[in-house]
Amino acid sequence: MSKDKQFVKEITPQQEDFSRWYIDVISKAELMSYSPVRGCVVLRPDGYEIWENIQRELDRKFKETGHRNAYFPLFIPESFFQKEKEHVEGFNPELPWVTEAGGEKLEERLAIRPTSETMIGHMYSNWINSYRDLPVLINQWANVVRWEKRTLPFLRTTEFLWQEGHTAHEDEADARKETMQMLEVYRDFAENFLAIPVIMGQKTPSEKFAGAVDTYSIEAMMKDGKAVQAGTSHYLGTNFAQAFDIKYLDRDNTQQYVHTTSWGVSTRLIGALIMVHGDDRGLVLPPKVAPLQAVVIPIGPPKTRDQVVPRAEQMFYELKKAGIRVKLDDNPDQSPGWKFNEYEMRGVPVRIEFGPRDMENGQAVLVSRVTGEKRPVRLDAIVDEVRRMLDEVHQAMYDNAKAFMDSHFKSIDTIDDMKSFLDAQRGFVLAGWCGSDACERQVKEETGATSRNMPFEPEERKTVCLVCGSKAEHTVVYGKSY
Amino acid sequence: MSKDKQFVKEITPQQEDFSRWYIDVISKAELMSYSPVRGCVVLRPDGYEIWENIQRELDRKFKETGHRNAYFPLFIPESFFQKEKEHVEGFNPELPWVTEAGGEKLEERLAIRPTSETMIGHMYSNWINSYRDLPVLINQWANVVRWEKRTLPFLRTTEFLWQEGHTAHEDEADARKETMQMLEVYRDFAENFLAIPVIMGQKTPSEKFAGAVDTYSIEAMMKDGKAVQAGTSHYLGTNFAQAFDIKYLDRDNTQQYVHTTSWGVSTRLIGALIMVHGDDRGLVLPPKVAPLQAVVIPIGPPKTRDQVVPRAEQMFYELKKAGIRVKLDDNPDQSPGWKFNEYEMRGVPVRIEFGPRDMENGQAVLVSRVTGEKRPVRLDAIVDEVRRMLDEVHQAMYDNAKAFMDSHFKSIDTIDDMKSFLDAQRGFVLAGWCGSDACERQVKEETGATSRNMPFEPEERKTVCLVCGSKAEHTVVYGKSY
Repeated sequence: MSKDKQFVKEITPQQEDFSRWYIDVISKAELMSYSPVRGCVVLRPDGYEIWENIQRELDRKFKETGHRNAYFPLFIPESFFQKEKEHVEGFNPELPWVTEAGGEKLEERLAIRPTSETMIGHMYSNWINSYRDLPVLINQWANVVRWEKRTLPFLRTTEFLWQEGHTAHEDEADARKETMQMLEVYRDFAENFLAIPVIMGQKTPSEKFAGAVDTYSIEAMMKDGKAVQAGTSHYLGTNFAQAFDIKYLDRDNTQQYVHTTSWGVSTRLIGALIMVHGDDRGLVLPPKVAPLQAVVIPIGPPKTRDQVVPRAEQMFYELKKAGIRVKLDDNPDQSPGWKFNEYEMRGVPVRIEFGPRDMENGQAVLVSRVTGEKRPVRLDAIVDEVRRMLDEVHQAMYDNAKAFMDSHFKSIDTIDDMKSFLDAQRGFVLAGWCGSDACERQVKEETGATSRNMPFEPEERKTVCLVCGSKAEHTVVYGKSY
Repeated sequence: MSKDKQFVKEITPQQEDFSRWYIDVISKAELMSYSPVRGCVVLRPDGYEIWENIQRELDRKFKETGHRNAYFPLFIPESFFQKEKEHVEGFNPELPWVTEAGGEKLEERLAIRPTSETMIGHMYSNWINSYRDLPVLINQWANVVRWEKRTLPFLRTTEFLWQEGHTAHEDEADARKETMQMLEVYRDFAENFLAIPVIMGQKTPSEKFAGAVDTYSIEAMMKDGKAVQAGTSHYLGTNFAQAFDIKYLDRDNTQQYVHTTSWGVSTRLIGALIMVHGDDRGLVLPPKVAPLQAVVIPIGPPKTRDQVVPRAEQMFYELKKAGIRVKLDDNPDQSPGWKFNEYEMRGVPVRIEFGPRDMENGQAVLVSRVTGEKRPVRLDAIVDEVRRMLDEVHQAMYDNAKAFMDSHFKSIDTIDDMKSFLDAQRGFVLAGWCGSDACERQVKEETGATSRNMPFEPEERKTVCLVCGSKAEHTVVYGKSY
């Protein structure tokens, strides 16, 4: 038992205090530890392995869509931030500065990157000359730092891990196509890999990325009804091209600015999947990212161990060979009941119970982490059966999350309706918006909710602004967020 | 043609200026670009993909030997460096300091990690309580920063990418076993994956890691006879355990300090493989890490393109499906001759020429980047034949590098012999050492060479110190280094 664990005896129920539940779960399941540096956490092996599984799948998707990885410097000269006006205003308050190095004061301060548009823009201006060099389709896996006032493990930490795609194109149409393609990659990944249903849409101007023309996002609903922005994709127009002089000779031999995009997801996805799927017993991990997909636990009287364990080992190797991330826990010092609780708390999707009677019958019992269903299956079909249950767990997790989001989502017409709804329960509302900053601000002041995005779906389009009652130019999803 | 490329018209011959050759090759092959931050380079896609291939294989080996990955903060509080005396002396001069963040001056300066023993030591002291928690076997893939005065792309840059393993054990024997195991993992990887023969051995006290009890290394010889330290593994004893109070309750219920190790390799390996294998035509990439292992180039008169290209495409898909990293270059705007030079410069191990006569004969011609051998092979055996040539290329690269190292390695008895040898040719010498710092320093002052390590092999043990002539306590490999 580690010292960290000693602090978490029991997991606080979600209804009692959702934030406390969250911290309890990620500490007790050893996904992270607090570090001695303010706002920075340590990703422990079980937490980091979730990130590795996320990385592997996204990296595959990025390469499939023609992107390659590269690596750019951690340090960004102060002067670079001055070149794009909105960008500097957006990020300046959050920057940490290196002012001394190698025993000397630096002539120019260096920021630790909060995002790399400026550095990459500078490099692209060196690399791009002609339309033949375009498009440039590059992604970077990296650590970034934003000096946040309020932090929360995974969701908002001073340092975090992410990927940032940065592409350059001949024209707006091609860049916009890329922007939407990557948004769709994120949606597909969230829903089909993390079992998290999301709302795709466009950010309102006040919520867009500092320096973007348009920002698009996928938004997920946590079990407390709050929103987490799970991925963003930006069309940057020629803003960074002008700031960093990224020009090319086009097909008519004329100098043109490139159109750029950027898009990213981060370790915040780990926070999202915990808050979307977890329950009072602990983590519930989506099978495709779970470090451990199945655990084999021998059961029955101690005197039967000698027969049962060797056959359980055989099952373990068979599953492992088939590519299932599986563990056999035959530790005789802990009871099966203790183990059941432990692996449920850790969110392992499928438990495999195996005792002397099962052995006689040539079967094992699969137990679903989500539904609790106990299913006896034939030993000679164990690989297929475990795979089937993993698929079912994924689907059940998605369906549960979708049902939760649908039942906590309300179309409303006035700010009073919105307040009543948010007083009665947590969730998102769909409302009309006239397009003015003032009305958007008023919603935030009166309800604490902010615009998440202007959704592509549902089809419903609102006709009046929930604040001023004048004609709605947009339909907006509002929600409270972390 | 990118702007970067315009600066490199021709590659400087190795004999004329090896350093210039190196910079020319890595610029022209687009492995890296200089960044606007002093001493930091950008790893471009072809450079980064070599690193990805290195990562994938090493990560597999680390996991196979029971390690898991985690992630620790980039920032290290200044007070942490004060806790291990040798460590702070070794690293303090190279640290960059964050002194301001989020618009405020920090109370305690934060270093950007040059290595993570201190932070990880602090975390381990929280995680480890009992012998049941041991061993802790963790690795981290990360960026680190050392403010170097002289920099050289890949070999010594301000920021670089690396992995750092950090393990904690019950006793010295177990920790030393781990130290040697990881050194052997590195040797095996260097020789069998990068085709780089290395000399394994122990560092002299003056060259060991700041804070280690013993440091072991693998050392490689570049084509200019200089040494590159290609990987290190440290037994840290209880030094960091004492500094960070990492104690556990042993099997007899007594508090003990853990024994720790650390071990790492970095993007410097990319520099090493370029300098070990490259030639005047450009890169020669080891097949197992080459981003592109084979390139198919249609040849013959333009009018035959319509027949040849579709069959070449079929070959391409067949090779790709078999898992070979292959490209078809059927660009009609460039001549086959231009392409031959281009892919040779980029170090692609195998070229596949395919023209109308080949098609008639049901064959293609494989050309080895290393030996230049042209080998007609049957189209229906293309996958096996390409695989075979890739294996041969790897073996030839290793054999060439080994022959070069052996012929530039001399056993000597006096410092005058060493000077004569280093005047006549570049390379390593094997010499006796009495064990005194003074003699080691004198070798450096008089010859410019430093002790690389005290090799496990060759068997030859020297009997007298090359400087003072008294009894040799150790046999040492000396060489100039980057």
